[in-house]
Amino acid sequence: LSHTTEMRVRYHETDKMGVVNHISHFRWFEVGRAELLRSLKMSMLQLEKAGCFLVLKEAKCEYKSPAWYDDLIKIETKVVEVREKGVKFHYSIVRGETVLAEGYTIHVCTDGAGKVKPFPMRFLKVFQEAMES
Amino acid sequence: LSHTTEMRVRYHETDKMGVVNHISHFRWFEVGRAELLRSLKMSMLQLEKAGCFLVLKEAKCEYKSPAWYDDLIKIETKVVEVREKGVKFHYSIVRGETVLAEGYTIHVCTDGAGKVKPFPMRFLKVFQEAMES
Amino acid sequence: LSHTTEMRVRYHETDKMGVVNHISHFRWFEVGRAELLRSLKMSMLQLEKAGCFLVLKEAKCEYKSPAWYDDLIKIETKVVEVREKGVKFHYSIVRGETVLAEGYTIHVCTDGAGKVKPFPMRFLKVFQEAMES
Amino acid sequence: LSHTTEMRVRYHETDKMGVVNHISHFRWFEVGRAELLRSLKMSMLQLEKAGCFLVLKEAKCEYKSPAWYDDLIKIETKVVEVREKGVKFHYSIVRGETVLAEGYTIHVCTDGAGKVKPFPMRFLKVFQEAMES
Repeated sequence: LSHTTEMRVRYHETDKMGVVNHISHFRWFEVGRAELLRSLKMSMLQLEKAGCFLVLKEAKCEYKSPAWYDDLIKIETKVVEVREKGVKFHYSIVRGETVLAEGYTIHVCTDGAGKVKPFPMRFLKVFQEAMES
Repeated sequence: LSHTTEMRVRYHETDKMGVVNHISHFRWFEVGRAELLRSLKMSMLQLEKAGCFLVLKEAKCEYKSPAWYDDLIKIETKVVEVREKGVKFHYSIVRGETVLAEGYTIHVCTDGAGKVKPFPMRFLKVFQEAMES
Repeated sequence: LSHTTEMRVRYHETDKMGVVNHISHFRWFEVGRAELLRSLKMSMLQLEKAGCFLVLKEAKCEYKSPAWYDDLIKIETKVVEVREKGVKFHYSIVRGETVLAEGYTIHVCTDGAGKVKPFPMRFLKVFQEAMES
Repeated sequence: LSHTTEMRVRYHETDKMGVVNHISHFRWFEVGRAELLRSLKMSMLQLEKAGCFLVLKEAKCEYKSPAWYDDLIKIETKVVEVREKGVKFHYSIVRGETVLAEGYTIHVCTDGAGKVKPFPMRFLKVFQEAMES
């Protein structure tokens, strides 16, 4: 299962090189992740209400081609790994047929105080189904 | 009393026009405000520990001259108005003799839940002294 | 004429106070402005191709009510003043019936080198129509 | 050779989880990289004047421990790989004895139009010396 969100590149996301600054891609990953979770009826807010905060352990992005101001881009997000206490998302940023960037983020489930803990079972199940479908 | 902080313009603060994006100035205001408070022995963290969160009510910036990547800029911050429940800071962003921007922010003191309340007396006194000195 | 754009509050737009950091509102203003221009068939890119860069001279925001993560917000943007060399936009950020913030930005038309110049006549006309309609 | 820059965590770098949002680390990497280059008498601006733009190909960060508002952090940056057309930097973000995060960025040298090209020889030499020292 891959979830696709569409968005426009904003002016303040560019830098003096004339193209999008590399930091913005990590913001887009967040948007893709949030919308994938929403499509699974498991929004970040619901996760947090259930006492599960998705803390980042690792984030990586490979840049293939520049993104320009006002580009209409797509963020394709999928769950690629699920563990008892963690989850890995993969992202592709595309514009038309062109892949602009690919990356992933690895998260652990923590309580409000930052302690790592297992995902609530119902969320774990949804993540696993999302990965396998 | 005016407090001065020095900092460098970062690459990701520029945009495709080649100069600093106007949003960064509000980030610099925050740096100036934090350092002014620290110089008054009343850091944001201390304020928050005392149950006072500085919520923004108004922010304004007038742009006089562009800032460029890697510019060494100064943020001159001062307290210009103090009330029982609020405070106003004024900022000048300068590079050498050139004023790049001027602005202000108005804040109210709130408890953790967002309810406006008077500043703790000892902080109020420090704000007033800072304004008059 | 008021143009409305809808968007979601992102996680990285919040700060440790639990609500949206005040800087994000200026990012939203940019989105509102870009979409208003697009609706007038006069995108930022078209303006820039015609040699007109919209440089910020002044930006202000008044904060009425906090915005929260994942809020579905609307940005209502309109042209409120048009001059030969400048334009002023007004913005309201709303969530349902609640006005979260209001503000404006004032821009001048500059050539690529930063020199202020009159708007190309066809753009001036569109701005004026947008203001009066 | 490792170059160390010190800085303070800013309020707007935190998010509603109460700690620094993971995106800020990539901003800090940029600061570390810029200051390392400056210490080598080869600032980003000098590189760009010589027709060499450092375009990102890959960025990764591993998060070890949360950073808090107002933390005084150090960014330790070093050159870990040098090729004819590319360079890799490694970063450690530390607070006192605690490693908060580690990461790297890989860049290629491009001309203004985005075409990959070899580093000017004098810069290549400086990178190599920085790596070996």
